[in-house]
Amino acid sequence: MDNCIFCKIIEGSIPSKKVYEDDRVFAFHDIQPQAPVHILIIPKKHFASLNDAGEDDWDTIGYIHKAAKQIAKEQGVAESGYRIVNNCGPDSGQIVFHLHMHLLAGEKLAGLGRNHS
Amino acid sequence: MDNCIFCKIIEGSIPSKKVYEDDRVFAFHDIQPQAPVHILIIPKKHFASLNDAGEDDWDTIGYIHKAAKQIAKEQGVAESGYRIVNNCGPDSGQIVFHLHMHLLAGEKLAGLGRNHS
Repeated sequence: MDNCIFCKIIEGSIPSKKVYEDDRVFAFHDIQPQAPVHILIIPKKHFASLNDAGEDDWDTIGYIHKAAKQIAKEQGVAESGYRIVNNCGPDSGQIVFHLHMHLLAGEKLAGLGRNHS
Repeated sequence: MDNCIFCKIIEGSIPSKKVYEDDRVFAFHDIQPQAPVHILIIPKKHFASLNDAGEDDWDTIGYIHKAAKQIAKEQGVAESGYRIVNNCGPDSGQIVFHLHMHLLAGEKLAGLGRNHS
């Protein structure tokens, strides 16, 4: 997608702090981290969100989690624990419309989404 | 697993408010909801967490997201938005050690995990 910031990060025309890459997946540090470890894991194929995922994409979403497990190990947080978050649509706070999984770790994480948590 | 509460929910020996079931996946309302819509989606095959997922399980994790998209539609939150969360290990707050994806929706969700968010 010509105007997608994450597609540009994958192709390298926008710089990022890359932590992982293979033929299907790219991962990099979030520029506004919300935990000591905050990495975004994205598919190289552009699709906007879970709502836009088609039959070919579920396998990719599973594969992103395989990469997440590997990245958690490499970051030294596999045993201390980590959270994977995917936001889809307005109420979730999704900002970039290229599907991405947040990997959060490095401290005791708070509740799952409520303001009072 | 004999002593797993989620395995017992799947087999029906512990009651739940089921919202979805097929041959691979079971979904039910969280008994301590942290959002107006808070559903747990679990694989029928028992494995403890992402860290314990093996080669056969990534496809199942992708499939859980396919079910999540369908459940979000059925719950009327596909367009307003929803969040999928998977906790793995101590820092994440994982309590039940049968892999589960939280589907949260029905209000503007807060930050991704920090206490001050």
